Amino acid sequence: MALDSEQLADIEAIRTQSAPTRRATVPALEDMLYTALPVLDHGFVRVIDYMGDDGAVVQAARVSYGRGTRKVSEDAGLIRYLMRHRHSTPFEMCEIKYHVKLPIFVARQWIRHRTANVNEISARYSILDREFYLPAPENLAAQSSINRQGRGEVIEGDEAQRVLDLLRDDSMRTYANYVDLLNENPDGTPADPSRPGLARELARMNLTLNTYTQWYWKTDLHNLLHFLSLRADSHAQYEIRVYAEAMLKTVEAWVPACYAAFRDFRLGAVTFSAPMLAILRRMLAGETVTQPDSGLSKREWAEFQAVIAATDVSPLG
Amino acid sequence: MALDSEQLADIEAIRTQSAPTRRATVPALEDMLYTALPVLDHGFVRVIDYMGDDGAVVQAARVSYGRGTRKVSEDAGLIRYLMRHRHSTPFEMCEIKYHVKLPIFVARQWIRHRTANVNEISARYSILDREFYLPAPENLAAQSSINRQGRGEVIEGDEAQRVLDLLRDDSMRTYANYVDLLNENPDGTPADPSRPGLARELARMNLTLNTYTQWYWKTDLHNLLHFLSLRADSHAQYEIRVYAEAMLKTVEAWVPACYAAFRDFRLGAVTFSAPMLAILRRMLAGETVTQPDSGLSKREWAEFQAVIAATDVSPLG
Amino acid sequence: MALDSEQLADIEAIRTQSAPTRRATVPALEDMLYTALPVLDHGFVRVIDYMGDDGAVVQAARVSYGRGTRKVSEDAGLIRYLMRHRHSTPFEMCEIKYHVKLPIFVARQWIRHRTANVNEISARYSILDREFYLPAPENLAAQSSINRQGRGEVIEGDEAQRVLDLLRDDSMRTYANYVDLLNENPDGTPADPSRPGLARELARMNLTLNTYTQWYWKTDLHNLLHFLSLRADSHAQYEIRVYAEAMLKTVEAWVPACYAAFRDFRLGAVTFSAPMLAILRRMLAGETVTQPDSGLSKREWAEFQAVIAATDVSPLG
Amino acid sequence: MALDSEQLADIEAIRTQSAPTRRATVPALEDMLYTALPVLDHGFVRVIDYMGDDGAVVQAARVSYGRGTRKVSEDAGLIRYLMRHRHSTPFEMCEIKYHVKLPIFVARQWIRHRTANVNEISARYSILDREFYLPAPENLAAQSSINRQGRGEVIEGDEAQRVLDLLRDDSMRTYANYVDLLNENPDGTPADPSRPGLARELARMNLTLNTYTQWYWKTDLHNLLHFLSLRADSHAQYEIRVYAEAMLKTVEAWVPACYAAFRDFRLGAVTFSAPMLAILRRMLAGETVTQPDSGLSKREWAEFQAVIAATDVSPLG
Repeated sequence: MALDSEQLADIEAIRTQSAPTRRATVPALEDMLYTALPVLDHGFVRVIDYMGDDGAVVQAARVSYGRGTRKVSEDAGLIRYLMRHRHSTPFEMCEIKYHVKLPIFVARQWIRHRTANVNEISARYSILDREFYLPAPENLAAQSSINRQGRGEVIEGDEAQRVLDLLRDDSMRTYANYVDLLNENPDGTPADPSRPGLARELARMNLTLNTYTQWYWKTDLHNLLHFLSLRADSHAQYEIRVYAEAMLKTVEAWVPACYAAFRDFRLGAVTFSAPMLAILRRMLAGETVTQPDSGLSKREWAEFQAVIAATDVSPLG
Repeated sequence: MALDSEQLADIEAIRTQSAPTRRATVPALEDMLYTALPVLDHGFVRVIDYMGDDGAVVQAARVSYGRGTRKVSEDAGLIRYLMRHRHSTPFEMCEIKYHVKLPIFVARQWIRHRTANVNEISARYSILDREFYLPAPENLAAQSSINRQGRGEVIEGDEAQRVLDLLRDDSMRTYANYVDLLNENPDGTPADPSRPGLARELARMNLTLNTYTQWYWKTDLHNLLHFLSLRADSHAQYEIRVYAEAMLKTVEAWVPACYAAFRDFRLGAVTFSAPMLAILRRMLAGETVTQPDSGLSKREWAEFQAVIAATDVSPLG
Repeated sequence: MALDSEQLADIEAIRTQSAPTRRATVPALEDMLYTALPVLDHGFVRVIDYMGDDGAVVQAARVSYGRGTRKVSEDAGLIRYLMRHRHSTPFEMCEIKYHVKLPIFVARQWIRHRTANVNEISARYSILDREFYLPAPENLAAQSSINRQGRGEVIEGDEAQRVLDLLRDDSMRTYANYVDLLNENPDGTPADPSRPGLARELARMNLTLNTYTQWYWKTDLHNLLHFLSLRADSHAQYEIRVYAEAMLKTVEAWVPACYAAFRDFRLGAVTFSAPMLAILRRMLAGETVTQPDSGLSKREWAEFQAVIAATDVSPLG
Repeated sequence: MALDSEQLADIEAIRTQSAPTRRATVPALEDMLYTALPVLDHGFVRVIDYMGDDGAVVQAARVSYGRGTRKVSEDAGLIRYLMRHRHSTPFEMCEIKYHVKLPIFVARQWIRHRTANVNEISARYSILDREFYLPAPENLAAQSSINRQGRGEVIEGDEAQRVLDLLRDDSMRTYANYVDLLNENPDGTPADPSRPGLARELARMNLTLNTYTQWYWKTDLHNLLHFLSLRADSHAQYEIRVYAEAMLKTVEAWVPACYAAFRDFRLGAVTFSAPMLAILRRMLAGETVTQPDSGLSKREWAEFQAVIAATDVSPLG
C-alpha cells in the first residue's frame, strides 16, 4: 500500500477543511481533492490544488469582465474551435498541482517536460523510504524483436520468477546497504556509534532506479494536455502511461468540455503528411494505390496503412 | 473612469457568487477578487483567480501529505530561509491571474517577461475602445540630461499644456480615422454603405502607442516577484511602476509572509560586487577609502557611495 | 529602401571577415549571412549567426562523440522519423539569430512566441527612425464579411487612395509631433533652446503602430519551425506571413533535410480528428457520407470537405 | 579513463576538420572544441559548438548592423554595466552546446535547470556502459552534524575501505544482473538462446544511481551563468561542482569579458538584505552592533558575520 496511517490521517484532516471562495470551483474535482489515486505497486497521483475550470478558458479567450461564459453548448463549441485551431493560450489559463509518487526511472522521463514547476523530495536532505517498483507478472515483458525501444511478449513461468527475484533481491540489498552507510536512527543518532555515517548526498547513489521518489508537480492545462498526449500514447512506456491515465481521469472531472475536445482532436486524432494526404485523395477518388506507386518509403507506407485500416487508433481503447 | 456600468455590473455579479472549496483560501485576497484597482487614467489591475497561499510554499518545500504547515513563526522562518538562499521552486507553487488594462507602450515592456501566460484582446478580431493614456501634469517629465533613458524635471505651465494638447489631439484624430477606416456600426453593418471598411487587422495600425489594450496575465509567485523586483524599482518607467505597485498590494494581501521576506531580501536588498565587498571590509576595519585607491571606476564608486550613504534604498519609500 | 549607405557599409565590412572554425558550417547559409532580405516596404530579415546543421540534429539524436552523421540518405531518414514522431529535442540543438526590422503591430504578434531570446531597440533610450509601414495597393484589403479576423476583397480606386492618404498623413503628422516633443538635434542639443524636450520614454507614445522597430531574435530550430508553421500559414496575417516566408528561405539554405521533412510533416500536413478519421474510413470502405449522417457540426464538416477536396493545402502554394 | 580508443579517434577526426566562416569565432575556445575535459572518475565535459562571443553581447545590446563592437575597454565597460544592472537579454544572444558524461544522481540535480535543451542517451533504446562513480578517498565524507544537507569530516582508514567496497560491490552486482536480464550479445543476438531477454526499458531499473549517463546540453550564456552561479557555489554538492568548475574554464576561454564581470558581480558578490544594510550603515558610522540589538535572528546574524569577516567569499578561492 502506498500510504501509511499517518499519511492517510493527514489527508483525511485536510479533506475535512472547507472555506467559501469566490473563485471558479469544480465539485467533481473537489471530490477527488487530496485523495491518492493508486498507480503501480506503491505509487500514486493526488490533486493538491487547481485554478480555473472550462469557463476560465472561454473567459480568457473573450478577455471578459465577468465569468465570460454563455450557453454551455456555445462554450463547448468555442473550446472545440480553440483546440482544433491550436489556439493554446486560453488553455494556459487553468492550472493544476499534483503530488506524485513514482519510481526514479519514471521521474527521469517525466522531467523532460520542462514547462512545469517541480519540488522533489531531496535525498541530500531526507532519507528515502524502502519502496521500490517491481512489475506485476503481466507487465514483465521481453525486449521487442522489431522495435529497439519497445516491449515484446510477456515473460512467464520460472523465468518470470527468476527475473522478479533478481530485481527484488538487488533492490533489497542495495537499500539495506544504503541504510548501513547512513548509519542513522530515525531520531538522527548514529545506529552504530563506533563509526561515522556516510553523507546522505553520497549514500543515495547506492539506490537502484526503481526506488520511489515523490514530487509536487504543477502545470497549466495546455502543457498538461501536451504531456498527456505523449505519455498516454500507446508508444509511451507502460510505467509512465499508467500515471497519464490516472491524470486523464482528473482532467475529465475538472474540465469536461476541454477533455472531450482533447479526446477528439488530440488523443484520437491522426496527422497525415503532405504525401500521405495526396495518396488519400487518390484513394477517395477511387484509385487503388500500392506502396511502390505511393512514393512513400516502406516504413511510412506501413504507418499509413496502420492508421487507415485500424478500427480504433485511440491509445486508450 | 476605467469601467462602464455594464462592466461594473458583471464584476458585481461575479463577486456575489460563492462556493465551498477544500483548497487553500485567503480571505484578504478574496475581498479584493475581481475588483478593479485603478492605475493611470484609464487602466486597472484586477485579480481574477489565485492558487495557493503562504502555506502552499512550505507544503511544497516539505513535499507533505497534509497542509504541511506548522507554527506560523516556523513557516515564516522557512520562507525567509528559502528567499534568502534563492530556493525558488517552492514559490513557483503559487499562481495568480490578473486582468490588466494598460497602454500599448506599457504592454510592450511588460511582455518581455516571458515566463507568464497571456491572452490579449485581439485588434484583428475586435475594435479597440476610444481610450488613450495622457500623463497627469505631475508626470509630464522632460528628458533627463544625465541619463539617456531617464526623466528629468517636470514640464510646467504653457509648455505642459502645449504638450498635452498635442498628445490629445493626435490620439483623438488617429482614433477618429481608425473608426472612419473601419466604417462599422456597433451591430457590424457599414456606417457608410457606399464604401468598404478596411480590415480590422490593418486599420489598427493607425492607432498611437498610448491606446489602451487589455489582457489576462497569469504567472507563478516566483516569476511575479521577479517581475515586481524589476518593475517596482526606481529605475523602471513610472507608467509601468504604478502597475507593479498596485500588484504589490495584492501580493501583500495574498501571501503576507512571502511578501515580508521579499521586501527584506529583494526590494530593499543590495548586492555588492567582489571589489565593493573588499572595500567594505577595509572600511569596517577603520580605513578611509577614496575612489582613486578603491580600484573602482568613477561610475561604480558613485553607485557604491549612493548605497552606503543612503538612508533608505527601498524603491518604494 | 530599408538600409542607408552607412548600414550597407557596415554589413559589407562584416561580410568580408572570415576565420577558420572547427564548427559545423553551412556554405549556403554563409552566403546569406548578414545580408538583408527585404520584407514589406521598409523591413528586412538578416541572419546574424547560426549554430549547427542537419548533421547536428542526428549527432544529438545519437549522442555521438564525432560528427555522428552517416550516409546522407540515412541521416535524412532519421530526420524524417524524428519529425514524424514529434521527437523535438534533437531539433533544439540548432540555433539561429536574426536581425529583423518590422512594424510595431507585427512585432506585437511575433513576441507572443515566448521561447526565443529578444533584444529590441529601446525607444526609452533611442529615437526611432521616421519609417512606417504603408500597405502596397494589392494588400489594402477590406474586412472579410465571413470571418471576423480575416480580410476580404482588395480595396481599389479612389477609396484605396483615400485610405492610403489617411494612413500616410496620420503617420507623418504623429511622427513630426514626436520629433517636436523630443526637441533634440542629432547631437543631443535642444532644437529649440527655449523649451525642454519631453522624455523619450513619454514622447514615443505619440507614434502609430505601423512605425518600424528592430530587434535581434534568436531561437532554436524546433521553436523556429513551430513559429513558421503558425506564421507561414494561410490564416496568418499577410504582414507577418511575409517575414515567415523570408525566414523559410533561410531555413531551406541552412538545414535542407529538416526543411524537406518540415514541408511534408508540418506545412503540408493535415490533422484529422477522431470523428473525421472514422468518416474517412467509412468513405474508404466505399460509403457515401453526408454532413447530416457524419456526426460533425456544419463547420467541422466544411473544414473536413475543404481538406479532402483541395488539390493543394500547402499554405505556400 | 573516460574515453575508449574509438571515441578518441572520432574526436581527433572531427578536430582536424576546418572551414572558413563569417561568424564570430573565438580561437581560445576553438582550441578546446570537442576535447573532453575529465571530471570525476569517468565523466567529462566537451564543448561541441558555440555561437557568439563577447562582441555578440554588445552587438545585441546596441541592435547594430555590423559587428557593433568599439574599443575593447568600452565593450568591457558596457558588459560590466549590463551584468551589474541585471540586463540579462544581451547575454542570451550567445549559445553553447556541451556533451557531458555524468553519474545519474548528478544528472538529476542538473536537469532541474529547465531553460536548456537536452538530448540524453536513452536506456530504453541503448544499453548503458559498465561505468559507475566511486568517490576518491578524499571525497568520501561523513554526514555533516550541523547541516542536514551537507558533508562533514572525511571518512578514513578501514571504514573508508569498507564503504568503497560496499559501493563497488553493489554497483558491480547490479550491473552484472542488468546484463544478465538483458541477455544480449553486442550484435543483438541472445547470449542465452534458451530464455528471453528482459525489455531494456525494464532492465535499466536494476542500475544504481551512480551509473554514468551522457547527454548533449545546450543553453544560452545568461542561463549558463545562472546555472554556474548556483552549481559552482560552495553549497553545491561536490560531484556537480566539479562539472561547474570545468565549464567555468570554457566560459573564460569563450567570453573573457563576460567571465570577468561574472566573477565580480555574481560569483564573488554578496547580497545584503534591507535589515543587514541598515546594520552595515550603523557600523560604518562607527557604531558597534551586536546580535541582540541588530534585530536579526541568530542565524541571519551568523551569516552576516561570516560575510563581513571573511577574507574571501569567492566559492572558488
